Amino acid sequence: MAIDSVFKHAYGVVIAGGSGTRFWPLSRRRHPKQLLTLFGRQSLLEQTLARIQPIIPSNQIYIFTRAPLLQNIRRLLPRLPSNQIFGEPASRNTAPTLAVAAQEIARRDPEGLMVVLPSDQIIAKPALFRRLLAAACRVATEPGRSVVLGLKPTRPETGFGYIRLGRRQGRVAGREVFHVESFTEKPALAVARRYVASGRYLWNGGIFIWKAATLLENFQRFQPDMAGLVRQIADAGGIRSQVFRRLYPKFQKISIDFAIMEKISDIYAVPADIGWNDVGSWAVVYELSRQDSEGNVRSGVGFSLDSQHNMLVSPKKFVVTIGIHDLVVVETDDALLVCTRERSQDVGKAVQQLERLGRDDLL
Amino acid sequence: MAIDSVFKHAYGVVIAGGSGTRFWPLSRRRHPKQLLTLFGRQSLLEQTLARIQPIIPSNQIYIFTRAPLLQNIRRLLPRLPSNQIFGEPASRNTAPTLAVAAQEIARRDPEGLMVVLPSDQIIAKPALFRRLLAAACRVATEPGRSVVLGLKPTRPETGFGYIRLGRRQGRVAGREVFHVESFTEKPALAVARRYVASGRYLWNGGIFIWKAATLLENFQRFQPDMAGLVRQIADAGGIRSQVFRRLYPKFQKISIDFAIMEKISDIYAVPADIGWNDVGSWAVVYELSRQDSEGNVRSGVGFSLDSQHNMLVSPKKFVVTIGIHDLVVVETDDALLVCTRERSQDVGKAVQQLERLGRDDLL
Repeated sequence: MAIDSVFKHAYGVVIAGGSGTRFWPLSRRRHPKQLLTLFGRQSLLEQTLARIQPIIPSNQIYIFTRAPLLQNIRRLLPRLPSNQIFGEPASRNTAPTLAVAAQEIARRDPEGLMVVLPSDQIIAKPALFRRLLAAACRVATEPGRSVVLGLKPTRPETGFGYIRLGRRQGRVAGREVFHVESFTEKPALAVARRYVASGRYLWNGGIFIWKAATLLENFQRFQPDMAGLVRQIADAGGIRSQVFRRLYPKFQKISIDFAIMEKISDIYAVPADIGWNDVGSWAVVYELSRQDSEGNVRSGVGFSLDSQHNMLVSPKKFVVTIGIHDLVVVETDDALLVCTRERSQDVGKAVQQLERLGRDDLL
Repeated sequence: MAIDSVFKHAYGVVIAGGSGTRFWPLSRRRHPKQLLTLFGRQSLLEQTLARIQPIIPSNQIYIFTRAPLLQNIRRLLPRLPSNQIFGEPASRNTAPTLAVAAQEIARRDPEGLMVVLPSDQIIAKPALFRRLLAAACRVATEPGRSVVLGLKPTRPETGFGYIRLGRRQGRVAGREVFHVESFTEKPALAVARRYVASGRYLWNGGIFIWKAATLLENFQRFQPDMAGLVRQIADAGGIRSQVFRRLYPKFQKISIDFAIMEKISDIYAVPADIGWNDVGSWAVVYELSRQDSEGNVRSGVGFSLDSQHNMLVSPKKFVVTIGIHDLVVVETDDALLVCTRERSQDVGKAVQQLERLGRDDLL
């Protein structure tokens, strides 16, 4: 089976609703992480599309986002048919998104395979990623099966869910495939260390592959209320109808992991050592960026005296540093963040503080 | 002799030509330190004037600055007669300034006493300062005498000149007066430590008192070339004439300390424990400002998480800090400085670097 034919019924479902508070002040409610140009010249969302466009044609790619981002994203992606970009009228996490996406794709193509892709990650080895997707699609072609790309852990991360591998299933299209024994929630540090050391656990990065029909059956079985809402939307004309706008907020707010993945058993993992990174903080952007001879990363003009290992982001201002080290400095038109690299995962706390202060203008 | 009568012939000569690179990016060539509002609601220059206005009427106060600052200063001081604010056509340090000031004042009032005041210092005890000036003026009324306010050293500062006290002369208007044995240049640290420990040395902060006629005689004797230029300017109509603009650049660039003070012997010091500070760096502004419970000083809006002992200056932006300590952060429309408090005396080096880079727009 050639790659082309594997992907004939594949539909990209790009999840682009994230609010991305961790890159404040550059990220805002209307300009979240997936729209930021943190690496190279493309936003993470554009990079996500560029990564799958060699294998999935644009008219088979759907983007789901929050309604307030719809116009921005349509402008950013002029080559994607605008009626394949959906703005959800309320944030309900991933399960409702994927349920309505499955309904839309199954209606269009009863053989349709969903390739679920978060829009705010980077993958250093895109060609390998595409070959692994081909294997995953082949596994998922069989009705009833779900597949997850299992990302090779590089550290005992406590912010991710893990996949516990079961029996090896052999090779598909040259790639190892395992049965998945269980999905786990975010572990404590000691547990995460055991997971990584064991070699039996992979990270769940939210990259799933299944037939739309399979997912709809799983919703019918494990989330009948949600399945009922999906049917109501379908009967009223689908996700482009006014009914969709009215009914969508009625969905429970729940992730696909909780709603479905932790409940099903006919599920497989394709281990993927693809240089995946979810780019969770400014410190990660620093690590992944080109550092100068002093270990500084600078986006914008300026100079540093006796300063090492800093991340300096200033689109407009001339930034001078003297004697500082291991800091993150991010400047926008209305705000300035100065934070140690070590504490950059706490930027979200600052955003919560802004919410408490009612500074919606800065969110 | 009442204070009023002591000051009858006193003329304030405020030196406001400094370029103030140490407060970059807030200070600029056209907006130097003396024009900054670092404390309270007034600039250092306005505070300098407010300090002497109870004893010297506005029409007896002269301000000497650089020509490019003339309009800014006239706008800042609308109540001072604008023809008492002079813009020097070239920067020639303090000796030429005081020579032409002496000529102007002697012409206006043959008994005129000059009270020379740098414009970029703070004095915590202004009432005591004025009483000490009264004593200094009484000493200086005698022809031939020069007087300096000797500032009580609080640390072995290597950036100032020191005054070595000679014989005690007794009290004048209730204040101690000493003969000055010598003026010294900026000492090395070990020397400065000896000076401070000895109790025989005071700081020279550039606050001088003498009759204009006395200073002119001293120029005639020790700097005859400069005295000749002063006479030429006087013959052509004084410092308001076109000739002034043409001749002033011909002056040697030299401080009053080198040109005159280190050469004369009829010189007296009035020790002054007046809470004097020359505000030499952002670290000093931090020390002198009101700190919040975390030891942070903030000018502008924002909040800090787990951040201590920082100086945050942002007139326009919302500044958030996380986990930082002992930093200086200063933001303007076009530039941003992030510097450790410890290294804030090196801001001048950054300005030199900007000069080398040809970034006149940022100077």
